[in-house]
Amino acid sequence: MHDLRAIYRDYIACLNASAWDRLGEFVSDDVTHNGRPFGVTGYRAMLENDVATIPDLRFEIELLVVDGDWVASRLAFDCHPAGDLQGVTVDGRRATFAENVFYRFRDGRIADVRSVVAPPDVASQT
Amino acid sequence: MHDLRAIYRDYIACLNASAWDRLGEFVSDDVTHNGRPFGVTGYRAMLENDVATIPDLRFEIELLVVDGDWVASRLAFDCHPAGDLQGVTVDGRRATFAENVFYRFRDGRIADVRSVVAPPDVASQT
Repeated sequence: MHDLRAIYRDYIACLNASAWDRLGEFVSDDVTHNGRPFGVTGYRAMLENDVATIPDLRFEIELLVVDGDWVASRLAFDCHPAGDLQGVTVDGRRATFAENVFYRFRDGRIADVRSVVAPPDVASQT
Repeated sequence: MHDLRAIYRDYIACLNASAWDRLGEFVSDDVTHNGRPFGVTGYRAMLENDVATIPDLRFEIELLVVDGDWVASRLAFDCHPAGDLQGVTVDGRRATFAENVFYRFRDGRIADVRSVVAPPDVASQT
């Protein structure tokens, strides 16, 4: 029996360290993301793109709900994205938003992700 | 100990029946929704407004993750909203979308809701 709560916290620490070479410890080779067959390579490309757009991106766990093979997490973001985010012009101002996301684990690794990201609340000043 | 899985399914059945007079069985008097202090009256008004905008609205549970006082649910919608939805023009065409939502229960009723709704995928035909 895997301790998914602990594994998930380690996964988030891996993301916050941009430790992409360790991503395969947490993410299955054939992972899907909102039904898209990304595989770990496409998943890593998505995350690297997120960090390129949001240099100060930091994943903060607000809620963590674990049940069998499933982890549900509410992530809180407070950052300064360049350009647009979710169709909203941010241009380096402070943006706060939430992601509510479900993960199915298989053999201790993330195999299926179903995520919804909220539009950002954008501050009037940077 | 409340069986939150069963209570949650009954809550969704209540919504699908538009049985608003029973809403207080499932929703706390002082419920908050994404931090807004709606109370059960404001919560009911939100749902009645949703059904006015989406006459064929139906809540379908895609995923249900239960842990302590928390329920996380992914809801799938397949409906025909009038006008706009989440900033997308739908105008009666078929729209599919997901809501990922966390609920904290207190004394067997929903007390705190943290929801993110995805923009709809809109069909080219009605």
